[in-house]
Amino acid sequence: MAFPEPLERLIRALEKFPGVGSRSAERMALHVLRSPREEVAELAMALRDARVETTRCEICGNITLRSPCAICTDAERDASVVCVVEGPREVEKMESAGMHHGLYHVLLEGFAPREGATPDPGALAALQRRVASGQVKEVVLATAPDREGEGAALQVVEALAGQPVIITRLARGLPVGARLEYLHGEILADAYQGRRPLDA
Amino acid sequence: MAFPEPLERLIRALEKFPGVGSRSAERMALHVLRSPREEVAELAMALRDARVETTRCEICGNITLRSPCAICTDAERDASVVCVVEGPREVEKMESAGMHHGLYHVLLEGFAPREGATPDPGALAALQRRVASGQVKEVVLATAPDREGEGAALQVVEALAGQPVIITRLARGLPVGARLEYLHGEILADAYQGRRPLDA
Repeated sequence: MAFPEPLERLIRALEKFPGVGSRSAERMALHVLRSPREEVAELAMALRDARVETTRCEICGNITLRSPCAICTDAERDASVVCVVEGPREVEKMESAGMHHGLYHVLLEGFAPREGATPDPGALAALQRRVASGQVKEVVLATAPDREGEGAALQVVEALAGQPVIITRLARGLPVGARLEYLHGEILADAYQGRRPLDA
Repeated sequence: MAFPEPLERLIRALEKFPGVGSRSAERMALHVLRSPREEVAELAMALRDARVETTRCEICGNITLRSPCAICTDAERDASVVCVVEGPREVEKMESAGMHHGLYHVLLEGFAPREGATPDPGALAALQRRVASGQVKEVVLATAPDREGEGAALQVVEALAGQPVIITRLARGLPVGARLEYLHGEILADAYQGRRPLDA
């Protein structure tokens, strides 16, 4: 045992975070040792509270204080359009964009390979059930336009194969407001390949 | 507020770790939400325990359960030779190397610029006092052979200027056991520049 036991134990516990190796865990632990006690107590409390007080919405899978979540129970929203996103962050982003007035389906971290985890069959099965219930007319794929996101989208398409639902996905191309000179060539190539007639 | 309050609070608390940005903090927080409750409780407990049960040795500054630490109170060790290291990790490393039978002085994270913190004047002042007490005959600088470590070493040298103590530093050159073909050119250049006559 290299360090005093409580320190070793903290390092072992911190190492369980994804992307935190033994060196990072050590650095974090040493930071804890020189932080004010109240700050450490706050973090400990925040950990427990976040774990105990939040849950996943039984309908869309998003993180919420109470299930079903505020979006799923909002009678003003259009339950026939479900936007599929990778995680809770993306729900917030879509909401702030203000264009989507339907519901969501969150694949969550466990799904996207970018998080280093295996696909979450639970989230896919839950989506299948939602669509099979007949209320959903359109599923909008809003996964990221990269390899992981495309992979996730593909799995959703496969999971919904044969069901009477329209599957759409967010448009891809030039990001509005961007100047061409600063765009990555890949984006330009993608936009060129997806070019559309002017009257479309 | 983008996420439920307890989650936001956890993210804010995690962001206080050095090197943890808002995205990493979010990822860590979401990891907490899908970890078993016992695991989260363990981490919370480990945080408090590490902070409350450990302290810094009043003599050498190393992390310890009880101050002064086991090394500083070991009558078998040679109190006339003090090895200056950057942090607790390096004490362990030196101990496992088994060559140093003297005491240590730990500059700690707060000192080395690599940790993103300002130099810790307290650790330097404590070293000055130790040397001024007259017991220390040799100070061995064992900071890292890079810019930050050299900077730290320089500050120690300046802090001890005028005191009747021999200051040495760990030899630099080819790492024993290495094959030249795999070494970085910088190491070779450094070893060449520091070449010594065969009988030295």
